[in-house]
Amino acid sequence: MTVTDALTPEERTAPVPDAPITGGVTLINRFRVAPERDDEFLALWTRTSQYFRGQPGFVSLRLHRAVSADADYRWVNVANWDSEEHFRAAHGSDEFRAAVSLPGWENFPSSPMLHQVVAEASAGDQ
Amino acid sequence: MTVTDALTPEERTAPVPDAPITGGVTLINRFRVAPERDDEFLALWTRTSQYFRGQPGFVSLRLHRAVSADADYRWVNVANWDSEEHFRAAHGSDEFRAAVSLPGWENFPSSPMLHQVVAEASAGDQ
Repeated sequence: MTVTDALTPEERTAPVPDAPITGGVTLINRFRVAPERDDEFLALWTRTSQYFRGQPGFVSLRLHRAVSADADYRWVNVANWDSEEHFRAAHGSDEFRAAVSLPGWENFPSSPMLHQVVAEASAGDQ
Repeated sequence: MTVTDALTPEERTAPVPDAPITGGVTLINRFRVAPERDDEFLALWTRTSQYFRGQPGFVSLRLHRAVSADADYRWVNVANWDSEEHFRAAHGSDEFRAAVSLPGWENFPSSPMLHQVVAEASAGDQ
């Protein structure tokens, strides 16, 4: 695995939608992390996520780690926001740019993409 | 985008973990879907997901569609299970093999991977 790219804050942000969106959005952000760097990644991600958790429109997040080392992106963050406008505002600030420019992020290429929830179900649903 | 691969039921199932897992697991399954085939994909996925929703240990799922057509995998299912054992049992049945062998699935390559939740947060958490 080659992990040499230093991504810009823009490259750390999900692309703009093809059409206007109403309602909530879900960021799914995959990270390439070498297994021996898991602790370093988690510390950096946790520090950066503190910023997002405090922003208007943030709903919830879950950070997942693959159980198999041969996953192409071993860590995946799934984060829900009230609207695309809230998401964009949180990714347009100087504080965001500073957070994703912290030393170490260059070791963890990411692939962020915004989504809409199309279907959901829970055990016990009719 | 080339969508010609017919995946086997085994290839439609997340790889076995590197080490034993205790507690819940989260499947993140990405699908390659050409935008003009969204309706066809959603109908097939919905039919297949009916099987999973009724299996022991199924907790919940959310199916996401990317808001940008240039996503490499435009649809992403995030599904929670009580344990890896429940997940494996649901993917070891003849009914599972029949569901993922339905005509049409060959148009939608998938990339399933099991995860554990490492961190979570909601708005209002301290």
